[in-house]
Amino acid sequence: MGYSSKLVEQAVEALSMLPGVGKKTALRLALFLVEQDEDQVKSFSEAVWKMRSEILHCTTCHNLSDTVQCAVCLDERRNRQLICVVESFKDVMAIEETGQFNGVYHVLGGVISPIEGVGPEQLNIDTLIHRVKDQSEEPPELIMAISPTIEGETTIFYLSKQLKDLSVKISTIARGVSFGGELEYADELTLGRSIIARIPYEK
Amino acid sequence: MGYSSKLVEQAVEALSMLPGVGKKTALRLALFLVEQDEDQVKSFSEAVWKMRSEILHCTTCHNLSDTVQCAVCLDERRNRQLICVVESFKDVMAIEETGQFNGVYHVLGGVISPIEGVGPEQLNIDTLIHRVKDQSEEPPELIMAISPTIEGETTIFYLSKQLKDLSVKISTIARGVSFGGELEYADELTLGRSIIARIPYEK
Repeated sequence: MGYSSKLVEQAVEALSMLPGVGKKTALRLALFLVEQDEDQVKSFSEAVWKMRSEILHCTTCHNLSDTVQCAVCLDERRNRQLICVVESFKDVMAIEETGQFNGVYHVLGGVISPIEGVGPEQLNIDTLIHRVKDQSEEPPELIMAISPTIEGETTIFYLSKQLKDLSVKISTIARGVSFGGELEYADELTLGRSIIARIPYEK
Repeated sequence: MGYSSKLVEQAVEALSMLPGVGKKTALRLALFLVEQDEDQVKSFSEAVWKMRSEILHCTTCHNLSDTVQCAVCLDERRNRQLICVVESFKDVMAIEETGQFNGVYHVLGGVISPIEGVGPEQLNIDTLIHRVKDQSEEPPELIMAISPTIEGETTIFYLSKQLKDLSVKISTIARGVSFGGELEYADELTLGRSIIARIPYEK
């Protein structure tokens, strides 16, 4: 590029690391930032760095958290007998958005994928087993909210084997045709399974 | 939004100040950044802040610059008799990209716009007049590379009045149908003017 400022060039380089931001967009963003008040750019840059440097992972469920334990785990009203097992903190956000779940979470940090070199030991599985064992009250229920891919299914299978001697109920989230989705566009597997797993109609 | 981290929320707030970035995209960017190495996010944040805090404006032409005088003004091979007058440093970049200009620049920092409260005194016009007066050699040529809007034309007119007693040549960049542009899609004004300002065909 033909601009002669090393400072701008370095900022463009930095901004183009963002997903979906190429060199042209990065330049547009940099030139926007260079025109803003110094205070504003300072808080911009600080907010990003503060987030990355101060964010913690909840010691109980491994969710992103500002504190040692995350807001969900600290919430007294949550049902601790109901543990939703997810792949990443993004899934926690997605499920929290629905407002339909009042249990707690366990973030695995990925799924078992031999191709990508991710084995069970890289995931937060030990802590999950400890959590299940530590339950003094009635046996907990684990809801597997994991992507229905081969890796996801493998992970659920592995977890169920690890947990089979413990007193625990395991379920997976319902698969089916999505609300507002048209039947003709649903893939065969989903459509097929949603017929097998049909639900009695409530009048 | 349903995420419970104040740190993430503040980063989303910051990122959504960027042009074309809404809350959803900002969240995606924030979650991307939170997953990157700490070092990378540190250099990201530093590059942006360093650019904004250390960038200077060239004391001669007001272009963005890392140094007291910009790289263009410092370049010995540039023709100092040929001054291209532009609205913003973005125009300097655009013209530099073409590689067709070997003169120097003068960045006005805007155009005269009574509606937006921009008068001549807010623009870098004094320094332009000084530059023209300081020319000891042959009279300089000012190329007005300013947007063909009412404000732009007003600015050019104002500048030409201010400069009329000085020994200076004034030109404006050629207006016409763009290369690769189809005649039927050109606006009437451009097409009309490009017929009036027709150029003898060189065989």
